[in-house]
Amino acid sequence: MKFAITQMAMSPDYEENIAKADAILASAKKDGADCVLLPELFEYPYFCKREDYRYFDLAEDFLDSKTLVHYQKLAIELGLVLPISFFEKAPTCYFNSLALIDRDGEIKGLYRKSHIPTGEGYEEKFYFTPGNTGISPIASSAGKLGIGICWDQWFPETSRILALSGADILMFPTAIGSEPVTGKDSRKHWQNAMIGSSAQNVMPLLASNRIGKEDDMGATVTFFGHSFATNQYGEVIAEMDENTEGYRIVEYDFDALRKERTTWGVFRDRRTDLYHDLLLVDPRLGR
Amino acid sequence: MKFAITQMAMSPDYEENIAKADAILASAKKDGADCVLLPELFEYPYFCKREDYRYFDLAEDFLDSKTLVHYQKLAIELGLVLPISFFEKAPTCYFNSLALIDRDGEIKGLYRKSHIPTGEGYEEKFYFTPGNTGISPIASSAGKLGIGICWDQWFPETSRILALSGADILMFPTAIGSEPVTGKDSRKHWQNAMIGSSAQNVMPLLASNRIGKEDDMGATVTFFGHSFATNQYGEVIAEMDENTEGYRIVEYDFDALRKERTTWGVFRDRRTDLYHDLLLVDPRLGR
Repeated sequence: MKFAITQMAMSPDYEENIAKADAILASAKKDGADCVLLPELFEYPYFCKREDYRYFDLAEDFLDSKTLVHYQKLAIELGLVLPISFFEKAPTCYFNSLALIDRDGEIKGLYRKSHIPTGEGYEEKFYFTPGNTGISPIASSAGKLGIGICWDQWFPETSRILALSGADILMFPTAIGSEPVTGKDSRKHWQNAMIGSSAQNVMPLLASNRIGKEDDMGATVTFFGHSFATNQYGEVIAEMDENTEGYRIVEYDFDALRKERTTWGVFRDRRTDLYHDLLLVDPRLGR
Repeated sequence: MKFAITQMAMSPDYEENIAKADAILASAKKDGADCVLLPELFEYPYFCKREDYRYFDLAEDFLDSKTLVHYQKLAIELGLVLPISFFEKAPTCYFNSLALIDRDGEIKGLYRKSHIPTGEGYEEKFYFTPGNTGISPIASSAGKLGIGICWDQWFPETSRILALSGADILMFPTAIGSEPVTGKDSRKHWQNAMIGSSAQNVMPLLASNRIGKEDDMGATVTFFGHSFATNQYGEVIAEMDENTEGYRIVEYDFDALRKERTTWGVFRDRRTDLYHDLLLVDPRLGR
């Protein structure tokens, strides 16, 4: 099964972003991709840079989204499995969501981002209610896809739960770059957290990030790209740079990977009787 | 606080192994170490290479162990915090255990390895009952030490639980090397799993492994060394090679690290309401 990681810079023009994404999808398809992972919230500049009520107008209902309808058509036309990140408007609140569209245009699953960050430049708690879909892989014609969204990728719980439920691969659309206040360069830290999830679950992992300096909206964030893919040992087997748009193709044999996973007994030897503390905020208090 | 990672080859001669470990401790102390992490089961060759009832005689009672008494004395003499891995004989079963000895010679905690591997060359399930001490850091004069033992290091649950309970650092004595049947070279996989735990928990991590080809006991395993230490981003800041005995010193400022951990909200943003699947063997069955 062939997957493509991607990266692109976004402009304030919706149509321009969609056209750019579509061109990447078409090229990746020509190179044999079965499934292409676009970055998080690729329809727009990363509006979470600032807290601004006007940006709630960008959200669309899952059942009535021009973006999803467009990608349902394109999935059929190109024969691609497409995890599409979008800003979702539900009846009473808003989510950072992803719809998995299969090659037949059918939406196979909706995932709402579970872990929501906040802080200067990344004010997601202002926009998004923490997801209520739970964490589980979505079956598709490209395998059981273990999909989280951006900040989810930092939490070993996300990847472990996806693996326990039979994911073949871990996939994270992302928007991460400079830190306006701390100045921290989080790139290696970001990559190491995911290298770990890949290695710990003996499973490949894909991350697609955006690139570009976005200084609209009165806040500046430079997204660092470096979209990457790992093998089942957490080794990086494809990695893009910090400023090139496009994609990279990686290929996996999920049947062989399932067999190999059996030879490394980390799932056999889990101690579920000892893990209760994982459900607690502060184990010292027992809750 | 200064920590030393170490590595050494073991001989069939107990006294020789203890003397070698003691020389490493004395040298590391001269270089300023506060706490030195020796490898797993350093008293003996890795007897788990084979299933042989005779090796149960190597185990000692926690309350009456010549090895622990020796290191209690040495901890006082050198002023070192010493996590000492040993083969423990309890009234009805046996454990792969570790006693944390503080600089005053007091045993601050006993940990029994939670995750027990098995397979050709690593027949630990034959010898060790899975630990019943639970997973929690042990307070010492060198900080709150988040200690697991070898195979524990592969499980993101181990490190996460240690971090949730306030560990300052993650530490894993280890015995890992060649795989007699699959031929797998697990070194990078091994390191990547721990790089991940370090990055995911924004916390340094130490691993001390043994070296040397052990072809006693009718089974051959070549231990690959590469003891290493990370910073709080999972970056390797010290690493040994595959055949040199000795130690490397790394220094951490736990107060500064605790403050920095606060600036990266991965503990703030956990979704304990979504993690129940972590307590299950097969989430599809709900148990």
